[in-house]
Amino acid sequence: MLNFHFYTPTQVVFGKDAEEETGGLVRQFGGQKVLLHYGGKSAKESGLLDRVCRTLEQEGISYVQLGGVKPNPRLSLVREGIDLCRREGVDFILAVGGGSVIDSAKAIGYGLENDCDVWDIFTRKTLPTGCTPIGAVLTIAAAGSEMSDSAVITNEDGWVKRGFNSNYARCRFAVMNPELTYTVSPYQTAAGCTDILMHTFERYFTPVTDAALTDALGEALVRTVIECSRVVMREPRDYNARAQIMWAGSLSHNGLTGCGTLGDWATHQLGHELSAQYDVAHGASLAAVWGSWARYVMGENPARFAQFAVNVMGVSPRSSEEETGRLGILSFEEFLRGIGMPVSIREMGIEADYTVAKELAYGCSFQETRTIGTFRKLGLKDMEAIYLMAK
Amino acid sequence: MLNFHFYTPTQVVFGKDAEEETGGLVRQFGGQKVLLHYGGKSAKESGLLDRVCRTLEQEGISYVQLGGVKPNPRLSLVREGIDLCRREGVDFILAVGGGSVIDSAKAIGYGLENDCDVWDIFTRKTLPTGCTPIGAVLTIAAAGSEMSDSAVITNEDGWVKRGFNSNYARCRFAVMNPELTYTVSPYQTAAGCTDILMHTFERYFTPVTDAALTDALGEALVRTVIECSRVVMREPRDYNARAQIMWAGSLSHNGLTGCGTLGDWATHQLGHELSAQYDVAHGASLAAVWGSWARYVMGENPARFAQFAVNVMGVSPRSSEEETGRLGILSFEEFLRGIGMPVSIREMGIEADYTVAKELAYGCSFQETRTIGTFRKLGLKDMEAIYLMAK
Repeated sequence: MLNFHFYTPTQVVFGKDAEEETGGLVRQFGGQKVLLHYGGKSAKESGLLDRVCRTLEQEGISYVQLGGVKPNPRLSLVREGIDLCRREGVDFILAVGGGSVIDSAKAIGYGLENDCDVWDIFTRKTLPTGCTPIGAVLTIAAAGSEMSDSAVITNEDGWVKRGFNSNYARCRFAVMNPELTYTVSPYQTAAGCTDILMHTFERYFTPVTDAALTDALGEALVRTVIECSRVVMREPRDYNARAQIMWAGSLSHNGLTGCGTLGDWATHQLGHELSAQYDVAHGASLAAVWGSWARYVMGENPARFAQFAVNVMGVSPRSSEEETGRLGILSFEEFLRGIGMPVSIREMGIEADYTVAKELAYGCSFQETRTIGTFRKLGLKDMEAIYLMAK
Repeated sequence: MLNFHFYTPTQVVFGKDAEEETGGLVRQFGGQKVLLHYGGKSAKESGLLDRVCRTLEQEGISYVQLGGVKPNPRLSLVREGIDLCRREGVDFILAVGGGSVIDSAKAIGYGLENDCDVWDIFTRKTLPTGCTPIGAVLTIAAAGSEMSDSAVITNEDGWVKRGFNSNYARCRFAVMNPELTYTVSPYQTAAGCTDILMHTFERYFTPVTDAALTDALGEALVRTVIECSRVVMREPRDYNARAQIMWAGSLSHNGLTGCGTLGDWATHQLGHELSAQYDVAHGASLAAVWGSWARYVMGENPARFAQFAVNVMGVSPRSSEEETGRLGILSFEEFLRGIGMPVSIREMGIEADYTVAKELAYGCSFQETRTIGTFRKLGLKDMEAIYLMAK
């Protein structure tokens, strides 16, 4: 087990009517002038935005609004948010939405607190020294951004997607009412569940395999999410299943499922490039490549995939770890298909021929300047091969 | 699943040589004059105290020392600590030790920050409005006080043991090096593991049984601790097993294993009375009564005990949930015996005849002014019955 730091300061307020506490929480964390940041019209039409505004008004907190965050949130809106916040003297950013809105809020917060171009932080040219305090009212269970240290932004100039992690950007609070996720479409729900599962997978398929507690917690989380994903596909308004998924989304990416291990993150990098170039849903991009990644790397440690197959997917052990592991991968892909997720790039409507695979790999390798992954370190040729396997 | 709040702001620094970071952490959290609080001579003799002091000196942080914390930490030393801190202008308390030392530090912190007699907080006469910042260097995996909101103090005047919980007292940081627990005696190690297990049991055996993720995480934690307890009984210097237990100790009592459920805590209350009257190790007192408590209350929800038996203890389901549940209880008691824990009061050297059971029940019921438990609410007569069953 590796040494680790664990830091999850976000105050979670979870359950029915939790959004009623929003104003009080902003007050508690010192917010006086708030940027209310959100996505499309659903937050408005559902009445959620109004309810949240009312709680701010009840606390005498003034606010300005900036909507329009898109999935794979864009740098241009982040810049617009930074300008708006500067003009208005904003000291607290309240994200009402899913991971995209929260990530956009984090990027605005970095921009406000650091005297540099915000994109320089995402390209690691400048190291941030702070971030404006952020709170979240979560409406989609997926990215885990409400408790995580990470933010991912897409620069439309070249469609480059880059993430940056730091504790500065951890939300001060996260308001989570599972009922708010009832109206998330089946496709987005499934993509969200996939993202949640992948946040644990990225920490579970690792060269460090002696963190028994972290393993067991990760396996428990994944089993629960798989079970509850199937339930919400049949019954979108099942409170309890929505609640397990929503809470799992936070725990899957707040660090808990990676304590003492080394993250892999290759699947995320492979998926990010697909999202950046084709603007597909993040979770779907991960579903499309994971099986191919898994088959490509399994030889490094078949025992790990066999453990996954048995403990998570309920596969009976076969004569070899490879065989057990392969059945685990297959069983997980069947689960993904069952909830309507693609398990190939073609199933997202993209023809990934050899030229496309080469382009994706070139982008994913940052123009051949980096490798990805730790379970198995992957170079340009490996990425090409995986994209081709996944086509 | 019930609504819940989850708040675990403690910064965890976990692993080999973690104590080297202590001074820097105190500095990070603004400590300028520190009370170094510890127990007996082991922290001194092992050289740990010197190493910790060196890290404070390197940061230019001055400190005063107060040792002598005993298991079931005493109010008189708390009062002494408060006086010392007032005289010396202490603004940060550093607990080097196990749960008793951290609890004592929390009580000192309450006393310093609140203008009342500190015992009034533990008897709920006065509600605290703050607590001096606390950091912990953990040397025993057991109480989970390094991440929990709770502190338990014993008033020698009448040997009354009382706990108080509030977020004010959550440690700013916790330094956890599993190697520091190598020298904990087998008995104290086993008592610690029992305490860890019970912190999850108290949240798992609850009337709220629809929190599937919390259940699964709790079961995973308990299975891991059981397995690793057996390992450290054979091999006290097994780093990895010590590490799993240490991390489980924090997660078992920081709130994670109770999200969305209702705690029971009857076993703790029954055990506290035993510790208060007979000064026995906390974990051992829990081991001595849990099986009797379990048999006494199982009828309320046999399915819960059957789930525990199957998912945690590996019992094959029998013809009735009661039978499966009983086998789970028995199997857990066998585990306790295997690591040298008592499963009756007699095995702690106390003859709990009818008079003693009555006295214990009277104390545990706060002179017949309260009930305990939520899985099944227990009055004076129930407590008597359980103490007698456990004798």
